Order: sequence, then C-alpha cells, then structure tokens
Amino acid sequence: MYKIDINSDLGESFGAYSIGGDREVIKYVTSANIACGFHAGDPVVMQNTVLAAKTAGAAIGAHPGYPDIMGFGRRNMSVSSEEAKAYVKYQIGALLAFTQSAGLKMQHVKTHGALYNMAAVDQSLARAIAEAVAEVDGNLILLGLSGSKMLEEGRACGLRVASEVFADRAYMEDGTLVPRSQTGSMIHDSELAISRVVGMVKNGKVESITGKEIAIQADSICVHGDNAEALEFVQGIREELIKNGVEIVNLGSIV
Amino acid sequence: MYKIDINSDLGESFGAYSIGGDREVIKYVTSANIACGFHAGDPVVMQNTVLAAKTAGAAIGAHPGYPDIMGFGRRNMSVSSEEAKAYVKYQIGALLAFTQSAGLKMQHVKTHGALYNMAAVDQSLARAIAEAVAEVDGNLILLGLSGSKMLEEGRACGLRVASEVFADRAYMEDGTLVPRSQTGSMIHDSELAISRVVGMVKNGKVESITGKEIAIQADSICVHGDNAEALEFVQGIREELIKNGVEIVNLGSIV
Amino acid sequence: MYKIDINSDLGESFGAYSIGGDREVIKYVTSANIACGFHAGDPVVMQNTVLAAKTAGAAIGAHPGYPDIMGFGRRNMSVSSEEAKAYVKYQIGALLAFTQSAGLKMQHVKTHGALYNMAAVDQSLARAIAEAVAEVDGNLILLGLSGSKMLEEGRACGLRVASEVFADRAYMEDGTLVPRSQTGSMIHDSELAISRVVGMVKNGKVESITGKEIAIQADSICVHGDNAEALEFVQGIREELIKNGVEIVNLGSIV
Amino acid sequence: MYKIDINSDLGESFGAYSIGGDREVIKYVTSANIACGFHAGDPVVMQNTVLAAKTAGAAIGAHPGYPDIMGFGRRNMSVSSEEAKAYVKYQIGALLAFTQSAGLKMQHVKTHGALYNMAAVDQSLARAIAEAVAEVDGNLILLGLSGSKMLEEGRACGLRVASEVFADRAYMEDGTLVPRSQTGSMIHDSELAISRVVGMVKNGKVESITGKEIAIQADSICVHGDNAEALEFVQGIREELIKNGVEIVNLGSIV
Repeated sequence: MYKIDINSDLGESFGAYSIGGDREVIKYVTSANIACGFHAGDPVVMQNTVLAAKTAGAAIGAHPGYPDIMGFGRRNMSVSSEEAKAYVKYQIGALLAFTQSAGLKMQHVKTHGALYNMAAVDQSLARAIAEAVAEVDGNLILLGLSGSKMLEEGRACGLRVASEVFADRAYMEDGTLVPRSQTGSMIHDSELAISRVVGMVKNGKVESITGKEIAIQADSICVHGDNAEALEFVQGIREELIKNGVEIVNLGSIV
Repeated sequence: MYKIDINSDLGESFGAYSIGGDREVIKYVTSANIACGFHAGDPVVMQNTVLAAKTAGAAIGAHPGYPDIMGFGRRNMSVSSEEAKAYVKYQIGALLAFTQSAGLKMQHVKTHGALYNMAAVDQSLARAIAEAVAEVDGNLILLGLSGSKMLEEGRACGLRVASEVFADRAYMEDGTLVPRSQTGSMIHDSELAISRVVGMVKNGKVESITGKEIAIQADSICVHGDNAEALEFVQGIREELIKNGVEIVNLGSIV
Repeated sequence: MYKIDINSDLGESFGAYSIGGDREVIKYVTSANIACGFHAGDPVVMQNTVLAAKTAGAAIGAHPGYPDIMGFGRRNMSVSSEEAKAYVKYQIGALLAFTQSAGLKMQHVKTHGALYNMAAVDQSLARAIAEAVAEVDGNLILLGLSGSKMLEEGRACGLRVASEVFADRAYMEDGTLVPRSQTGSMIHDSELAISRVVGMVKNGKVESITGKEIAIQADSICVHGDNAEALEFVQGIREELIKNGVEIVNLGSIV
Repeated sequence: MYKIDINSDLGESFGAYSIGGDREVIKYVTSANIACGFHAGDPVVMQNTVLAAKTAGAAIGAHPGYPDIMGFGRRNMSVSSEEAKAYVKYQIGALLAFTQSAGLKMQHVKTHGALYNMAAVDQSLARAIAEAVAEVDGNLILLGLSGSKMLEEGRACGLRVASEVFADRAYMEDGTLVPRSQTGSMIHDSELAISRVVGMVKNGKVESITGKEIAIQADSICVHGDNAEALEFVQGIREELIKNGVEIVNLGSIV
C-alpha cells in the first residue's frame, strides 16, 4: 500500500513572541519537527510543543538550525564542519531532554532553513550533520530534501533516511527545487499541488518545470499552518491522499 | 573507609574566548561539571570537554546556569519555576548528546553560579531544578550545597543527592556559607583549608565562623584550576586526603 | 492650559517575530518609546520604527531594557550599577544612530519592564540610569513612574523629568501601583479609567485603592495598541481628554 | 612629510572573558577600533576601552561586526543590505554613547572580520556599510582594505576614506591579500615586514607575491597586542618608521 508522512515545522515561538499555527496544524501531521533554540524555540516552548505532539499523536523530530534567532536561521553562515556537527548534536540533545521527560522516543532529525538548504548541496556540511545524528543515536531517521547530498551522507553514515517533497514548489530536471527567485517556482493552484503529491507518492514521478517527467522519492510532505488558507490546504491534501488510497503514517512506518 | 569526590567547573570557554585551566585541573578531579551553553560553554567546547573528561577518567555532570553569557551566570534572574525547570532540562539534554556520542553515562547535575546560590535557599526554585533532573533521568545524582534546599528537594524527588563543601570558605552556624562580602568569609591559609576538609570528611564536622563546631556532610569538594596557585592547592588537598586515609572517588561510588 | 503626552512602547518586533500593533497606535501617540535590541527590537525594526514615528509626527525616545530577549526584559536581573549604566548608554546610543540618520533629535528615555519597575524603587539603580542618560545627552527627558526613585534621581542629575501615569491601574496610598497580583489592581471599566486620567491631569489627584484621594503628577499616559480593544481605548481617551480641554502634546512641550 | 596611522582592534573582551593585550598595545596606536557588542565587546568593556583610549590619546573608531559572538564575527553571514546597513548604524550609535559621554568625537569606522573581508569584495555590502556610516555622521572616516570595494563605495558616498595595509601579509598582483590558506601568505620575518611597510608609506609600492612591484596606498597599518612578540613588533615598527622620517599620526591628520 502507498504510504506517506506529513511533517510540519513547529515550536518556533520564542519567549513573548508567538509564531505559527501550531495548535491547529499539529492535528493533521504525523511528524513534528520541533525547533531547538538556535534559530527559534526556547526551552519552555520546546517542553510545551513536545507535550502537544504527544497529545496529538505526532512523532517527534529535532529541527536544528544555525545559531541565529535574529535571522530565524534563514541566513547562510560559514560554520566549520566541526561547529556544524557540534551544533546539531547540541540541539538534538536539548530536545531529547524533553522527549525523555515525556516518556517518548525521538523519531527523526530535519535541519532548518539555511542549514537545510546548504546541507542539500554541500557534501561536507551534509556529512557533518549526518555524523552528528548517527553519533547521538543511530536509530534516528534523517529527513531531508529528496535527492539531496543530505540523504546521500545520511545513508553513508548508516542512518535510515526519508525523502521530503514539497507540494507547492516546482522542481528542476535534476530534482532540486526551482529557486524562489525564479518565475514559476511556486505552485499556487492547490488542486494541482495536491495532484502532484499524489503522483509523487503513487508513481514516484513529478513533472519538472521544463515539462519533463522526473523520478522523485516521496516519503514525507512538508506543510505549514500559519493561516486559514494553509490549514485548509493541509486538510485538502490529507483527504485527497486518503481518497487515492495513500495511507498517512509517520516516518518510522515508512523507512 | 572514608571517601570523597573532587569536582571542578569545566568547559567554560566560549568561541574565541578561553577561560579556566581545564587541561591541568581535569587530571586531579573525579567529577567534571561541564557548562552547557547558557552561562558559558558552546557546543564545540562541550564536545571537547566531554572527550577530555573521558580521557582523564573523570565522571561527567551537567553544569546548567541562567541564560546570561554576558554575566557568566552570576547574576540573579527572577525566572519562573516553569522556566527554570525547562532551562535545566534543556541544558542537561544538550550535554547528553555529547556523553551519548562518547559512549558515556552522565553521572550528575550541579547548577552554576546564581542558579546554584538561589536554589540553595529558594525552595520552589530548588523544586523546579530537582524535578527537571528527575524527569530527564532519575539515575542522575544531584550535587548541591551541603545542607541546602537544593538537596532537600532532590531527596523529595527521589534523587540520590551529594553534598558539596568548600575548602576555602567559612561557614555560618546554620551550615550556610559566610557571604563573600563579610570579613572572614574566605580561608586564605591553605594548610588550614585542607585540614578543615579532612575534618569534614572524617568527622562530619567543621568549625563555624563563630567558633562553634557544626555538623556538615561532605561528599564532594569543589576545586578550581585557574592559575598555578589553584592547581598547587588541588594537588595539596589530594595528597593530604590520601595521606589521611581518605579515598578519592567519583560521586557514583559515594552516594 | 492643561496638557498631557500620550506614549506607547513600540518597535518590539524581532527578526521574523512580529508583536504589537505599532502601525495603528503610532497615529495616536505623541511620544514613541522604541525598544533598543536588549529586551526586544532589532536594528532593522529600530530603523523602521524611527521612520514610522517621523511620518506620524511622534517624538522619539529610547526604551532600554535588561539584556534578556527570551524574557522580554520582564525578569528582574541583579546587574551592578556599572553594568546598568553602561547598558542604558549603549541602548540610547544605538537608537541615536537611527534618529541622527533620520535628521531627528531624540526626545526622551523610558526604561522597560523589569528595569522600569526596579528603578522605580531601587535608588542606586535609578541613579545609574539617570547618570547614563545625563552623560550621553543632558537634554534628554527622563520619563518614569510618577513619584518614583527614577524621577528623583533624574532630577538630582539635572535632567528634566516627566511623570508617567496609567489609566488602567489602581494606585496605593503612597502613589505606587497596586501589584498586578492583588485584587483590584486593574481598572477594567474604560469610562472610569478615562475619567481618572482626566482627573489626574486637571486636578493632580486620583483616588487610591483605599478610597483616599492622593496627589499625582501626570505628564504622560502610557497606552498600548495590541488589539482592537486597546486601540479603541486609545481613541476614547484622546477624545475625552480633548473634550475636557486637555491638549495632547509631546513631552518636550510639557516639562 | 610622510605620515601613517597605527590602528588596533581593541575592546574585544566580553563579560568574564578577557582577550587581547589592550592595556599595552593602546600605548602605541594612534587609532583604536573598538568592538561594539555584536562580535565581541560588551557595554562595560566599551565604556572602559573608550576611557583607556582617551587616556592614551588614541583616536576612537567603531569596529562593527556580524551578530555572532560565538564565532567572533569571523564567519560569513548572508545578511541583506538592509540588515547590514542597520547593523552597522546600530553599532556605531552604541559606541557614540560612550564617546559622547567621554566628551570625545568618534573619528572613524572599520568593520571587523568577515564583515571586513566580505565588504572588501562585495559591492552591495560595501555600499550598505558606506551608506550607514554616511547617514549616521558624514564626518566619520571609513577605514578599509587598501584598494577594496569598501573604500570605493565610501568615496561614492562622499566619505573620507583611509587605506589599511598589513605588515605581515603578502599581496596579490591586484592588491588583494594572499589568502591565509596559500603558501607564502604570511610574512614571518619581522625586519622584512617592517621594511615593506616603510616602502609602502614612502614609495606607495610593495612587492607582490609574484615578485612584481605594485602600487599601494598606505594610510594606516593594523597591529595586534596579543602577546609579547606582537608588542615587540609594534614597538619595532614604530621606531623604524620614525627613524625613516615617517610621522605617526591619527587618521584625521592624514585623510
């Protein structure tokens, strides 16, 4: 049977600052990526988000980023491999304290923002991250961009890896995302977006921006819950996937 | 046979900033309290300090503090119990990533600076910290000021607790430390300091600043390695303890 | 003629995090207190808020706080007088860069949160803050709680001081605010709140929580713009003040 | 007559962390670049360093960097032009508070570490920085790498600019520094280093790493005071310059 995981970046509030529609979107996801205090999140937010994920039945993953709250982890930083590795370990560990407290196992790790994007193409950064995950806990699943260096290095480190796809993004012929700066990078028609995801899951294929059909591995789809429209999209995609015979399960049941 | 642990606060360097004589003092301690990034330390420093402790054979503990690198965790902050609890969990977890990576078990937790001092007398703060430790891992030993609220709450949470004493500090009749601002608070004569520690360990007693002998539990003594004089003192105290038939072992062998 | 200033704390967004209804409330205030990056605000937010205040015609003041973004500057911190003084100078200077760039003069300084509350009652902290302001620019007006140590020390340093009052807070007989934890501390009836402010401005008096009439100096009233209700209140208080013959002008025209 | 300025990066200590030999090296420099709290320095350190520079008679400049204390501002960050501009303004302003308090005028601005290196070659970043300086105070001198985009943009913004050279670094034929990773990038022979500087100042020329003589503008030379050897070098270069008829004066007397 076809299966897919639905993940979302959660717990990105910070102190007095609230961001994201965690309370609603968490009901629809099977995997929760929880910010770990470097790009967003604070210990109290992490504690609460772990408990919310437990209540909602979502599997929990660490969502480590660059140490840059002012930039929300979206700005490239030239950290060394040693630094990247230590930063990822630190953040996974920090979240571990809360999953252990809650009597839960951590399921996965997915890096955030610039650390996600850079690790998709930078082999040595990807290696540092994969090693960090493997050394902290070899049972963790590494969730990364489908076809990326991140997953390549994860496999090389003996980790189970999971391929993330995006419903609302166009793909290049080589399987990378069309940069946001380029025309046609975003898919605004939500019916089209959903049908593309269904196709990725059932056929392992998607039409690239040039019109050529390309192979793509789809283990998990990333969704957001920032506003009513985003939430509606999440509900729509869930229904459509189920209607098409795709089971929605967490990563641990897929990879 | 008489036993005592020798602990030191280590891993307090940060980025380009070096502090403390870790490399030397780690040879003489049985328990290493490693800073966790809130008041000092960064992930790379934590990684390296865990490995140095492993090499030296010192047991490892987390040394969580207030989120205040600019003040080195020495300034009181009025955080809520919920915040204190989450901050301590976060920091223990962060260090766990490095002990797990190194194939080690974490032995203990000792709070730092203002968090140590406030928790010694503030019951609800002490409770929050003890709960944090117990919820993350009930096997961790809580190391705190001899006779403090911290240890009282640690026991109430079902944790093993260890009593820390200071060789170079004078004690009030109630077993609390004479405040640094008061005359006679520091013991500058190192022979006297050492003989006081030997007495605490062997007789469970020490002379308070008023001259009255008071009962004191001494499971661990805190030492520093900032300069040549400090290191000499550590060596002196070790030799004198051994000469007096006191075995120097880590906390796990005592409590 | 009776005069009063209306001030609001603005520019408290941070990076990706938005907070406060700056865009709306700035239209109704005569003095804008702009966060300076220690408890909230970042350089881009400061730049934009200074320009927004310029457009709206509001006079600009620095709103320095404790270095604690995670706690939004609301947590007491035991910093030394030397530290407090340097922190306040630093933050005033940081904002100066943006007022100078915009061709504006900074009008005033009002401390934030815990730094405001502590300086209202702690003489040496108040002194440190007042000295910081006076040394950076003796023409700055110091805005603080009516009847507070802050204003006392401001005067002692030769500064012009302005007394802030709160429409929605009850007062003790000694002129201090009834702590939020106490019943009756907040005035929820907006008509009553407005009539109290009118009374403070026109008669220099207000009824304390015990029912006794006390003297109060009212140079400025603090308002918020977080939600529709808050904005409605601001509009209401403006109209009512004007209807009662009170002119709404910035601090520079009052003290 | 030949003139040159000697500058040094100072005030890079932070909280409990000390770095650099400020106390000694400040005696030998004519311009002090003072860290502003983003990559190093804190408000108390800034205050003390401004006063030390005043006592030593060194002219004061702001030394803004990326917001990255953990990386000491040495790591490239992809901030936007808007962010870079606001960050530089903020930091200049913060230091202004201390120079104003001390009754001094700020002389110059020199960016730090990665912000210095990136701005030397990245036109839009250089533009953002130059605009920041010009908008805060058009009388400030912009000190940057000789021949860099930074100086080009400074001139375009109407600022006086000053060219910095390095005694211990080799130059490419195009006047840029030989990257540290390349063999021969550092000049270890201090006599050679000194004679090169004398040549730059008196002839406006230096031999590049390929052996070809290139033109170079030398308004200021950067020195360090981290250790005894560095200090000895500073003293040596001063003596040799004076002996060769070069006057050592601050930037304001040169550009």
